[in-house]
Amino acid sequence: MRTYNELSPSPRTIMTPGPVEVDPRVLRALSYPILGQFDPEFTAYMNDTMEMLRSVFQTNNRWAFPVDGTSRSGLEAVLTSLIEPGDKVLIPIFGRFGHLLNEIAVRCGAEVTTLHAEWGTVFDQEEIVSAIKREKPDLVAVVHGETSTGRVQPLERIGPACREAGALLVVDAVATIGGVPVKTDEWGLDAVVGGTQKCLSVPSGMAPITFNERAERKILSRKRVERGIRPPGYEEPEGLGAPIQSNYLDLAQLMDYWSPTRLNHHTEMTSMLYGLREGLRIVLQEGLDNRFDRHRLNESALIAGLEAMGLALYGDPSCKMTVVTCVTIPEGVDGESVRTMLLDLFGIEIASSFGPLKGKIWRIGTMGYSCSRKNVLHLLGAFEAVLLRHGAEIKAGASLQAALDVYEGK
Amino acid sequence: MRTYNELSPSPRTIMTPGPVEVDPRVLRALSYPILGQFDPEFTAYMNDTMEMLRSVFQTNNRWAFPVDGTSRSGLEAVLTSLIEPGDKVLIPIFGRFGHLLNEIAVRCGAEVTTLHAEWGTVFDQEEIVSAIKREKPDLVAVVHGETSTGRVQPLERIGPACREAGALLVVDAVATIGGVPVKTDEWGLDAVVGGTQKCLSVPSGMAPITFNERAERKILSRKRVERGIRPPGYEEPEGLGAPIQSNYLDLAQLMDYWSPTRLNHHTEMTSMLYGLREGLRIVLQEGLDNRFDRHRLNESALIAGLEAMGLALYGDPSCKMTVVTCVTIPEGVDGESVRTMLLDLFGIEIASSFGPLKGKIWRIGTMGYSCSRKNVLHLLGAFEAVLLRHGAEIKAGASLQAALDVYEGK
Repeated sequence: MRTYNELSPSPRTIMTPGPVEVDPRVLRALSYPILGQFDPEFTAYMNDTMEMLRSVFQTNNRWAFPVDGTSRSGLEAVLTSLIEPGDKVLIPIFGRFGHLLNEIAVRCGAEVTTLHAEWGTVFDQEEIVSAIKREKPDLVAVVHGETSTGRVQPLERIGPACREAGALLVVDAVATIGGVPVKTDEWGLDAVVGGTQKCLSVPSGMAPITFNERAERKILSRKRVERGIRPPGYEEPEGLGAPIQSNYLDLAQLMDYWSPTRLNHHTEMTSMLYGLREGLRIVLQEGLDNRFDRHRLNESALIAGLEAMGLALYGDPSCKMTVVTCVTIPEGVDGESVRTMLLDLFGIEIASSFGPLKGKIWRIGTMGYSCSRKNVLHLLGAFEAVLLRHGAEIKAGASLQAALDVYEGK
Repeated sequence: MRTYNELSPSPRTIMTPGPVEVDPRVLRALSYPILGQFDPEFTAYMNDTMEMLRSVFQTNNRWAFPVDGTSRSGLEAVLTSLIEPGDKVLIPIFGRFGHLLNEIAVRCGAEVTTLHAEWGTVFDQEEIVSAIKREKPDLVAVVHGETSTGRVQPLERIGPACREAGALLVVDAVATIGGVPVKTDEWGLDAVVGGTQKCLSVPSGMAPITFNERAERKILSRKRVERGIRPPGYEEPEGLGAPIQSNYLDLAQLMDYWSPTRLNHHTEMTSMLYGLREGLRIVLQEGLDNRFDRHRLNESALIAGLEAMGLALYGDPSCKMTVVTCVTIPEGVDGESVRTMLLDLFGIEIASSFGPLKGKIWRIGTMGYSCSRKNVLHLLGAFEAVLLRHGAEIKAGASLQAALDVYEGK
């Protein structure tokens, strides 16, 4: 039989829009011995996590907990629990992840209407508000930070419009939570899905979500008690909505699991929960505002450095997402070859993009623990060298000086 | 704002049917810095994991990989990808997790026929074979090791019967994989779902699965390319089966992600993948047969110790599962109070059970890293003391002597 080497991953500087580097304190938390899922010490950690998630989502919602899967499991849990077959759903799309919301909603049996904005831009909120008035959807699902194009969609006027129209508003904040303000309550968002592996700097594996009482009412109207844990003589209440088609991602069941009832559902991911709790603790120790400032500062230095080199940024700057910077690949340069050289020789990872942007842009993330002065400076120096090596016509020596100017407040 | 304490879980001896203690080498693997999901070093680790899973599942199947969620996400991924609405599904139920298979199959739109065996027993295989001939199901789903009752269902004659009837056979081996033989190919199992947090001794968070070409054909007949990554001009092939209702748990998409195509789906759980790879490496280093022997030896010692105390085991001994031992709670003893005292004073966790067995039995797991002589001896000594403290009429002093006799080969 083949023998397998001991795990020994090379050190990487990860400057993609996720997954990004994990804070060593989180890595340490992952290595602690486990507790049973109903051990009072463990359920106390679960409760801490709920409380800290409320702060990070800027909400007073009762419900804030992780779904046990990667980010898209959180999106699907929310959509499959809120969308009944035949429900009208409106999805404004301005990049790859808007298409994903559409994909999931269609699989939930929704009648989806999509709006399209050119990639690299976002919607004027009035356009979405008009569509809500026109289409009268049951639910609107929209991406907040679209990593495929590096844009952020303003949301503060969509929430009130949904409330007025009786629609629920679901927001994909996978890429923004912990790096860019997500004001769940102030903006009137009914359900928000975050990601761990981006600005929270926890490994991929959980999807923090929150939802309010409007969403809860819809979920509970569809609640079924699982076969196998029904009490003797159980009768299903009359007048329930359509059953939720997933058992694993059924928020009605997850609410029972994440409440004092602690009704058995899945077996909570112990180590990931340790990691998420520690990641959230670090976010709150830094403070949300300080954290957002840090992301903006490093973005400024990165942009200054890239532009000083003579590179062009992709997309409408008025809606640029702080934590992702898209760079147009210069004519005649093989984008994948640049990425490979950065990874192989400098240990730095940056990303390509999807669909119409494949081969056209690079995407550089400045998220969470990866969003540091050291990383930005390291990347700019390496990027310049690799681009020169690829014969790109860029200005040598200017990039790091421009970034240092930003850090020195010049 | 509240401050949160540093993570500091108490040391526990976890003798439940999962989650169980994690090998320190796995905990260490969890703490290694992460790699990007498409980093060649990381995809090599993914491939190692597939290869090792094939050995553990005792299969030559091409497809063996983890689903990114807890065990029931693996069950749902397999069932939702294999069951089309209206498909006839046969589910033999002999405990709580058979009901779960039923629950998931119903949510997939199956027309389910259930068979029922009294809890504490399993089915005579001929009974299932007859039902397959009678019902002509499209799919049969059955639990291998039923942790709620501590029974193991023999399977070697079900596979051939399914093949003859043109049905697919799905097996829930969450509790048995890595602790009790699961002979995927020899028994003719079409799809098998394992668990990480039981006999593999990796934290909860992934669900290793395998499936053969018969299952693959059914899955591919339903395959849809996701919106957002469809190539320009993409047209859906004609004659496809019903779409798979989940996107996150769509095995057709997961196959593309786990093949050289590496088509973007979710972001693989880096740290959990490290942990699973290390856990599998440890299993194969020990050797499957040695590992099964170790589980049998510790079970023998545990049973000898419990019986010497005068406790009665629950359930039909002819189908007892090696890795779970169910004990009838003696008359007049408060089972929950015993569990609490064991946890609070001795740091030992054992389990209660579900539904009709709630308050009637304790369940003791001897799984994976928790399945050690030290743990069995520690538990027996503590259990005796706690039962005496609760006024149970048991024989003092005999339990550990009986267990030591087993370990000394007497």
